[in-house]
Amino acid sequence: MKSLPFDIEATSGAARAGTLHTARGSVTTPVYMPVGTQGAIRALPPALLPQTGSQIILANTYHLSQRPGEKLVARHGGLHKMMSVDNPILTDSGGFQVFSLKKSGITEEGVTFAYEVDGQKTFLSPERSMEIQQQLGADIAMVFDECLPFGADKERAIASVDRTARWEARSKAAHTREDQSLFGIVQGGFWSDLRKRSARQITDIGFDGYAIGGLSVGEGHERMCDVLDFTTPEMPKESPRYLMGVGRPLDLVEGVARGIDMFDCVIQTRHSRSGMFYTTAGRIRITDRRYRNDMYPPDTTCTCTTCTKFTRAYIHHLFRVGEILGATLATIHNLTWFANFMAKMRASIVDGTFEDFRRQVHETYPEKVEGKAQPKGRSQSRGKRKSRR
Amino acid sequence: MKSLPFDIEATSGAARAGTLHTARGSVTTPVYMPVGTQGAIRALPPALLPQTGSQIILANTYHLSQRPGEKLVARHGGLHKMMSVDNPILTDSGGFQVFSLKKSGITEEGVTFAYEVDGQKTFLSPERSMEIQQQLGADIAMVFDECLPFGADKERAIASVDRTARWEARSKAAHTREDQSLFGIVQGGFWSDLRKRSARQITDIGFDGYAIGGLSVGEGHERMCDVLDFTTPEMPKESPRYLMGVGRPLDLVEGVARGIDMFDCVIQTRHSRSGMFYTTAGRIRITDRRYRNDMYPPDTTCTCTTCTKFTRAYIHHLFRVGEILGATLATIHNLTWFANFMAKMRASIVDGTFEDFRRQVHETYPEKVEGKAQPKGRSQSRGKRKSRR
Repeated sequence: MKSLPFDIEATSGAARAGTLHTARGSVTTPVYMPVGTQGAIRALPPALLPQTGSQIILANTYHLSQRPGEKLVARHGGLHKMMSVDNPILTDSGGFQVFSLKKSGITEEGVTFAYEVDGQKTFLSPERSMEIQQQLGADIAMVFDECLPFGADKERAIASVDRTARWEARSKAAHTREDQSLFGIVQGGFWSDLRKRSARQITDIGFDGYAIGGLSVGEGHERMCDVLDFTTPEMPKESPRYLMGVGRPLDLVEGVARGIDMFDCVIQTRHSRSGMFYTTAGRIRITDRRYRNDMYPPDTTCTCTTCTKFTRAYIHHLFRVGEILGATLATIHNLTWFANFMAKMRASIVDGTFEDFRRQVHETYPEKVEGKAQPKGRSQSRGKRKSRR
Repeated sequence: MKSLPFDIEATSGAARAGTLHTARGSVTTPVYMPVGTQGAIRALPPALLPQTGSQIILANTYHLSQRPGEKLVARHGGLHKMMSVDNPILTDSGGFQVFSLKKSGITEEGVTFAYEVDGQKTFLSPERSMEIQQQLGADIAMVFDECLPFGADKERAIASVDRTARWEARSKAAHTREDQSLFGIVQGGFWSDLRKRSARQITDIGFDGYAIGGLSVGEGHERMCDVLDFTTPEMPKESPRYLMGVGRPLDLVEGVARGIDMFDCVIQTRHSRSGMFYTTAGRIRITDRRYRNDMYPPDTTCTCTTCTKFTRAYIHHLFRVGEILGATLATIHNLTWFANFMAKMRASIVDGTFEDFRRQVHETYPEKVEGKAQPKGRSQSRGKRKSRR
């Protein structure tokens, strides 16, 4: 493990303005990380990544281990060289994806599953995930955790939390790469006592940073906030905290208000491909007929290269005729918009106006993801793969 | 019409090394023009166009008049501003596309046809094409010509050539924009006497440049060369000559050898999207299994941003998992490759080694498009829309 120096420069309640010091440069937090699942951010040529202000990106262990395979990535000298990206990269552990697939078996040793594309049987364990991630060579790796199936009862959840702790200890033991940091993951579903139990176990093992897993699975905004309320206080103050798979504006600001520093989410790139633009006045869907002759830029207050060079009418046209450039222009804008959104949030923490910023987000982006109906008192873990990657 | 100064700096037989002086900068010839049919070069963000060395691009009147409509383009201040492209642009007249669609009627006045997407009845004529093209605001517009249906007999071909001359005269009369050049088009199928007749008629009307239409319709390489052999000598020496819809390496070098200065073709961008890379050693299909672990750049002698930053194995992976970045990287390479190819061809004309260059192309790119079987002595004109745009 490579220690990951983390400075906290200002706070506002539980919210923190910090800086992560990586070998590939500093990352100011809170930070949103765009996702490059298969070793590429969808519809965004890497040469255009720097102009979006994105600081650190995410790639997926599960997908990359299948295609093109971690050995090939290692032959390139790692993900950065293969992708031609200078930014720091974080890889997830594959746990979330594996557990959302049809499994043929979970044992104390690990998980056997069928690759979704060709059905090939594959085995993943803490040791194997570490082997893959060390070959991928990201700056930050994640431990291999167990993800509860949707609707598991508490007895099973306790066993899962304890097994996750054992798997995370094995992850740490198997991780030898000295130029790569390793983050632990806190599980525990929606039970306060289980989240605390997990946080204690994982903190005892000791990692460079700590993530919260098992959210963004359809639990809804309020429930997510509840879990953060009783989980983040149990996580080390001096280490970076990462909320996995979460990224709507309201979720981001409420996550930060509860002490989260890092986020990743696919909606920014996925919404871009369907013509959704985030603006200071709320979201707009550029494919809507009303934009057919609209000569304004997507966001009238934005200085990204999409908004300074192209009109809504032209981008509407691109989507209408199926030119992929539309998705690229939307991705450039939305990644820039979220980088600016996080930068403004950070500035508000520093200058003591975070609560004003937070209120504003509630006005502009009130959308809350509806929670799925579920039996009371029952846990659910990372369930809907689509919602995460 | 805006006169388009054209200097010829060197010749080698009929081949010419020239320079077109446009208001948006000089274009060295011979030149290949990438095609942005719907107001965007497929899979290539405009910010990445300059690095390919592309000098001038083409856009399609027919498509743009339907979507987004020329009025909307004019509201942007023209194609350049709408697309955010600083390069000179040439628009075709729509004649080729219209004649390859189901028509409901051709009269001396013009053509009525159904738009291929929604079936809407539309009328196109020399005057209407000029109106559209002047609103699109390209640097070079093309006259509206008649394209013979496949398999027309000579009597009909004569009538068509004569009508084309009348339509081109009307095009010139209807063209009033002073900052836009206008090119005539020579038709005449595969008959030597008709090509000469058309060339005489069109030259008598007088344009800023002269194009050869009706080729690249499945006639095959040899037949194309035959037509050029008896047509280009009839076209004014001092004006730029443009061979429409042609762009394979062998076609390009043989076109230049017969006095052609400008070319456009969609294969460069279309082949890119299917994973084809042009290299100095011939074409390679990156999706081929043999490239799965290939750590070389697509073209080992190329200095484009794709070849200097990415491996065949990574690009193979991108195509395999369906990441659009693969198409973008291929497009960057292939447009750069063809710009370099034309630049090298030009240099060989200047330094007297054109015949060596030509021989080399025959060795590396011997592929000849097979001509379609057709009745002897029968003409055929622009037929297969797919082959051109």
